Amino acid sequence: MDQKKRRVVVVGGVAAGMKVASRLRRLDPEVEITVIERGSQVSYGACALPYYIEGLFEDLDEVRQTPAGVVRDETFFRKVKGFDVRASTEALNVARKARILRVRDLQTGEEENLAYDVLVLATGNRPILPSIPGIDLAGVHALKSPEDAGYLMDLSRTARTAVIVGGGLIGLEMAEALAKRGIAVTLVEMKDQILASALDFGMAALVHRELRKNGVNLRLGEGVQAIEGEEGRVSRVLTTGGSYAADMVVMAIGVRPEVTLARDAGLEIGPTGAIAVDAGLRTSDPSIYAAGDCAESTDLLTGKKVYVPLGSTANKHGRVVADNICGRNETFAGILGSLIVKVFDLNVARTGLSEEDARLVGLDPVTLLAPSPDRAHIYPGAKPIVIKLVADRASRRILGAQIVGPGNVDKRIDTLVAALTLGATVDQVAAFDLAYAPPFASAMDPLITAANALRNKLDGIGISLDPAEVMELLEGEEDFVFLDVRSPAEYSEVRIPGSTLLPLGMLRQRLAELPRDRRIVAFCKLSLRGYEAQRILQGAGFDRVCFMEGGILGWP
Amino acid sequence: MDQKKRRVVVVGGVAAGMKVASRLRRLDPEVEITVIERGSQVSYGACALPYYIEGLFEDLDEVRQTPAGVVRDETFFRKVKGFDVRASTEALNVARKARILRVRDLQTGEEENLAYDVLVLATGNRPILPSIPGIDLAGVHALKSPEDAGYLMDLSRTARTAVIVGGGLIGLEMAEALAKRGIAVTLVEMKDQILASALDFGMAALVHRELRKNGVNLRLGEGVQAIEGEEGRVSRVLTTGGSYAADMVVMAIGVRPEVTLARDAGLEIGPTGAIAVDAGLRTSDPSIYAAGDCAESTDLLTGKKVYVPLGSTANKHGRVVADNICGRNETFAGILGSLIVKVFDLNVARTGLSEEDARLVGLDPVTLLAPSPDRAHIYPGAKPIVIKLVADRASRRILGAQIVGPGNVDKRIDTLVAALTLGATVDQVAAFDLAYAPPFASAMDPLITAANALRNKLDGIGISLDPAEVMELLEGEEDFVFLDVRSPAEYSEVRIPGSTLLPLGMLRQRLAELPRDRRIVAFCKLSLRGYEAQRILQGAGFDRVCFMEGGILGWP
Ligand SMILES: Cc1cc2nc3c(=O)[nH]c(=O)nc-3n(C[C@H](O)[C@H](O)[C@H](O)COP(=O)(O)OP(=O)(O)OC[C@H]3O[C@@H](n4cnc5c(N)ncnc54)[C@H](O)[C@@H]3O)c2cc1C
Ligand SMILES: Cc1cc2nc3c(=O)[nH]c(=O)nc-3n(C[C@H](O)[C@H](O)[C@H](O)COP(=O)(O)OP(=O)(O)OC[C@H]3O[C@@H](n4cnc5c(N)ncnc54)[C@H](O)[C@@H]3O)c2cc1C
Ligand SMILES: CC(C)(COP(=O)(O)OP(=O)(O)OC[C@H]1O[C@@H](n2cnc3c(N)ncnc32)[C@H](O)[C@@H]1OP(=O)(O)O)[C@@H](O)C(=O)NCCC(=O)NCCS
Ligand SMILES: CC(C)(COP(=O)(O)OP(=O)(O)OC[C@H]1O[C@@H](n2cnc3c(N)ncnc32)[C@H](O)[C@@H]1OP(=O)(O)O)[C@@H](O)C(=O)NCCC(=O)NCCS
Ligand SMILES: [Ca+2]
Ligand SMILES: [Ca+2]
Repeated sequence: MDQKKRRVVVVGGVAAGMKVASRLRRLDPEVEITVIERGSQVSYGACALPYYIEGLFEDLDEVRQTPAGVVRDETFFRKVKGFDVRASTEALNVARKARILRVRDLQTGEEENLAYDVLVLATGNRPILPSIPGIDLAGVHALKSPEDAGYLMDLSRTARTAVIVGGGLIGLEMAEALAKRGIAVTLVEMKDQILASALDFGMAALVHRELRKNGVNLRLGEGVQAIEGEEGRVSRVLTTGGSYAADMVVMAIGVRPEVTLARDAGLEIGPTGAIAVDAGLRTSDPSIYAAGDCAESTDLLTGKKVYVPLGSTANKHGRVVADNICGRNETFAGILGSLIVKVFDLNVARTGLSEEDARLVGLDPVTLLAPSPDRAHIYPGAKPIVIKLVADRASRRILGAQIVGPGNVDKRIDTLVAALTLGATVDQVAAFDLAYAPPFASAMDPLITAANALRNKLDGIGISLDPAEVMELLEGEEDFVFLDVRSPAEYSEVRIPGSTLLPLGMLRQRLAELPRDRRIVAFCKLSLRGYEAQRILQGAGFDRVCFMEGGILGWP
Repeated sequence: MDQKKRRVVVVGGVAAGMKVASRLRRLDPEVEITVIERGSQVSYGACALPYYIEGLFEDLDEVRQTPAGVVRDETFFRKVKGFDVRASTEALNVARKARILRVRDLQTGEEENLAYDVLVLATGNRPILPSIPGIDLAGVHALKSPEDAGYLMDLSRTARTAVIVGGGLIGLEMAEALAKRGIAVTLVEMKDQILASALDFGMAALVHRELRKNGVNLRLGEGVQAIEGEEGRVSRVLTTGGSYAADMVVMAIGVRPEVTLARDAGLEIGPTGAIAVDAGLRTSDPSIYAAGDCAESTDLLTGKKVYVPLGSTANKHGRVVADNICGRNETFAGILGSLIVKVFDLNVARTGLSEEDARLVGLDPVTLLAPSPDRAHIYPGAKPIVIKLVADRASRRILGAQIVGPGNVDKRIDTLVAALTLGATVDQVAAFDLAYAPPFASAMDPLITAANALRNKLDGIGISLDPAEVMELLEGEEDFVFLDVRSPAEYSEVRIPGSTLLPLGMLRQRLAELPRDRRIVAFCKLSLRGYEAQRILQGAGFDRVCFMEGGILGWP
């Protein structure tokens, strides 16, 4: 193959495609590069669109600006990055034998054949729109591109009510954006929890509380059956559980990989429905790569193929593909399903396997829920976070984590991402020499505390139930002591029904008041005093005692 | 040994000692535990004292309160944690054969012998006070305990000028605290940089800029020679470089491990001057443990003994000792020298080996300086951070990192702490599935970008000099082109003397204007465009071209 004349054609011009082309040009000044995009804009940060609708910035063009404020349009890519971008141009089909991509200019209707030596599919995803009555009404829309954002923004200027369908990342971000704009928001989710594939129920429950606290009418376990309208415009949404007024409807039930081109060309489609790729992101045709939201990834922990369409992965994919086109032999090992989202005043993040995931793949997970202040509790601005760790019982390896709270959640998740990638045990995490000063952490970082608490549980030193297990107990027949060991002042402020107060400071001297024949479940605000109570009581010979993980802060 | 009657005596009641005792009681309800502390208060968070002086909280007692607001005094420890604390009591000497600790009640003067089965030394550190003229003047003080903080707080209420001696962690925190209180602060440091053992010069230079910006009179390379006073009160500080008015002087030139008791008892003292311990934190006497600031640690990367006295380590040590007293066979592998400190609006953190450290131990480090916004640059509140990564050339393993900036520094440092602990290469870091959403990061996290830029350097794709190397060039004879590839608007706002403007967007079409026989050093605000320029020029056949790492943001 003649290096000089090599022609690379990229289909899809948002994250993955533009990354391939940009990196490729840096690696090879000679190769001919053409990016084909059917949309009118390229290289935009879709992730920022909800914040535009929220009103955090005014100019929609900001989502495709460089940090220096230059708009990334075709001219920018030609002049700065040094390759051709053809927007408003659709790739119609691939003649793989001839290595020809047929494209159509959507403005002129003209068609053309583009010869390629290497083809890159970066065709991304497409929002799922269920075929229910009313889906085509004006005012019913998904959020994917700047055009969509412009359309939804226009609606939001006059809307007084909105229904969001789907409690995933985009649904949650849109709920916040529209609620902050003063619109009465109903969020409808078919499952019994938001972020169903990402969070265990108990952690999701903390997010439910936050949504409701902020006035979102959260309808869990309801499926949308129809959308009603007047004069072609949406007015109501009917679900299996109710009927909700809607001047606008955001459809956010998920996305599907856009694989039309790949499938039509006979490329292998993987079990997830996305394009099957090897570790070098090559498709079943060695001249064709796939990158970003149209391609599968591998779960680093289970080795299974997964579909987690994210901008972070799309960019990584793009870089790997560019390197491989240049013969640099890069691989993309896989992902952990890391996710983070801000929901009003809560930060919500996860990585690795949830407890549910771990059970599903046949592992024996041990979990622990530990709330802590995110920095020295006396430093101004300290805010709580609730960490749920999941570890493998036998190997003690960390399997995953979920962290929720108004405090600094992202730091601990990213630290765990590193730990998980490298196969750390919970014992190794507890020994991490994390950087400590009061404005940033506590002497024992919340992560280290959570790891220690989990080690205690694995070692039989800490004996605990999580809030869901306690709730089951409360609903059952067993007559147990639900022992609140906080102070009287804390108790008078907020308490859990059915609990009995015995402050930790008096526990050692008032042991006689407690029954030895009944189970005792101790708790406090965080879990620290609950755990201490468990140890005190055990030390005093009580043998049916445990504490409730998460304390008041983990109680849904 | 009879479990029931075992007596454990702990000397030192701040972090390590109290942790040993607290954990020990949880593990063993029977053992007799006594903590001896010569100070009047125990279990205080010294780390919070500068923030008290800054005025961030009013009640000094807060530094020894639990998150629930209870003061950790002797009563608290007896009632809640279940052991005896004897404050204002000094340990005088250890009769190791007889296993007896002699103590004196500092209030009554009474002495007493305490028999022990296990002794724990948690005697901490002592601030270094140089024997220079005037060191004993009123108003000259180190900061270690709440009493010290009370004393310095009193001084600060009337002081108009203050001299801080020492540019370490405490010196920096006190500079900020006093300056924020409106006092004219001079900070004197003997070395040519602050945090000399923690940061490479270039990174420290960014902190120097911040100190000066905030009105601190920073005197580098000056040693204190004498302190002058009037009527027994300090008035001036004389250094090798000048004389500075001082209504108060904070001595913060470092600390030494408090090993008097250990040394007198004939225990082995390590090469660092701290008590030598094995991986289980046992001293040379198997009945005596040492924990916290009086004990040595091991550097996880070099395997060398090091002395890095920190509250985070003290607490970890304490827990390990308690476990080992109970036969649980815990080890403390070591530390990375992680450090973090807030200096006005800058967050300053480091972990692992600096470039200087790496050279000193004979490694072949490759470094990279990369500034980035800490989250999506269009998300409100995005702030820059400058990451310096240090990696081993041959193995590509990360050796260390320094991160400075107003943005989120701590997240990236802690992620790297995990990576370093587990031996990650820069290639592994670049593939981390870090959690991304615009309020928290960028699609390619700054850490991933820094890792990729370092990989480019290792791979010969990125060719760069760091600012210090460029400064040397500027001072030398070579006639090179110092090429600013930012926009005219950015150039008119701030520029580096001696630079020539040629915006990146015009570079490809104006190549003819650049000389092919001279070196070209390209730069921009961050480095991204500088790097792009380097690739463009190289691609066009310029062969003496590089970019300046760190750009304007890394320029000291
Ligand atoms: C509202 C919103 C919020 C998000 N938030 C986050 C977040 O917080 N964090 C995160 O990591 N990710 C987030 N994402 C996801 C992220 O934006 C995507 O993962 C990323 O855009 C994927 O990039 P891609 O290039 O692979 O695919 P896409 O962005 O889907 O781009 C593919 C492009 O290919 C084009 N195309 C497809 N077929 C053809 C054809 N035949 N001819 C021509 N062009 C074609 C399409 O028009 C499309 O523009 C968010 C997405 C949205 C919509
Ligand atoms: C202003 C300041 C800011 C700090 N900031 C940070 C920070 O941001 N991050 C961080 O990690 N660390 C920080 N530290 C350090 C941290 O406070 C110490 O590392 C920690 O206190 C060490 O605990 P320790 O129990 O080992 O020793 P110490 O705190 O030194 O306690 C030892 C105790 O032993 C007692 N003792 C010694 N000998 C005897 C004897 N013979 N008889 C009886 N008692 C004796 C002493 O009186 C002393 O109270 C800071 C320290 C200070 C002073
Ligand atoms: C921006 C985009 C066009 C990619 O172009 P790009 O040139 O690779 O990206 P950037 O302009 O950020 O430049 C990154 C390059 O500069 C380098 N770089 C960045 N900062 C640097 C620094 N401080 N020092 C040295 N190099 C640096 C990076 O390593 C990278 O080079 P490499 O890939 O050769 O290693 C593509 O990612 C895109 O279109 N993004 C917008 C859409 C998107 O990402 N959406 C999903 C999230 S919402
Ligand atoms: C506080 C101090 C007395 C130690 O006492 P302690 O009882 O070990 O500490 P805490 O009260 O924080 O309790 C921690 C215990 O509760 C557990 N815990 C904390 N939060 C928990 C949660 N949410 N769920 C379950 N367990 C939890 C921890 O794992 C730990 O138990 P373990 O050591 O048996 O594993 C000691 O650290 C001290 O004096 N500190 C102040 C001084 C200091 O640290 N200075 C340096 C920094 S400025
Ligand atoms: Ca779930
Ligand atoms: Ca140095």
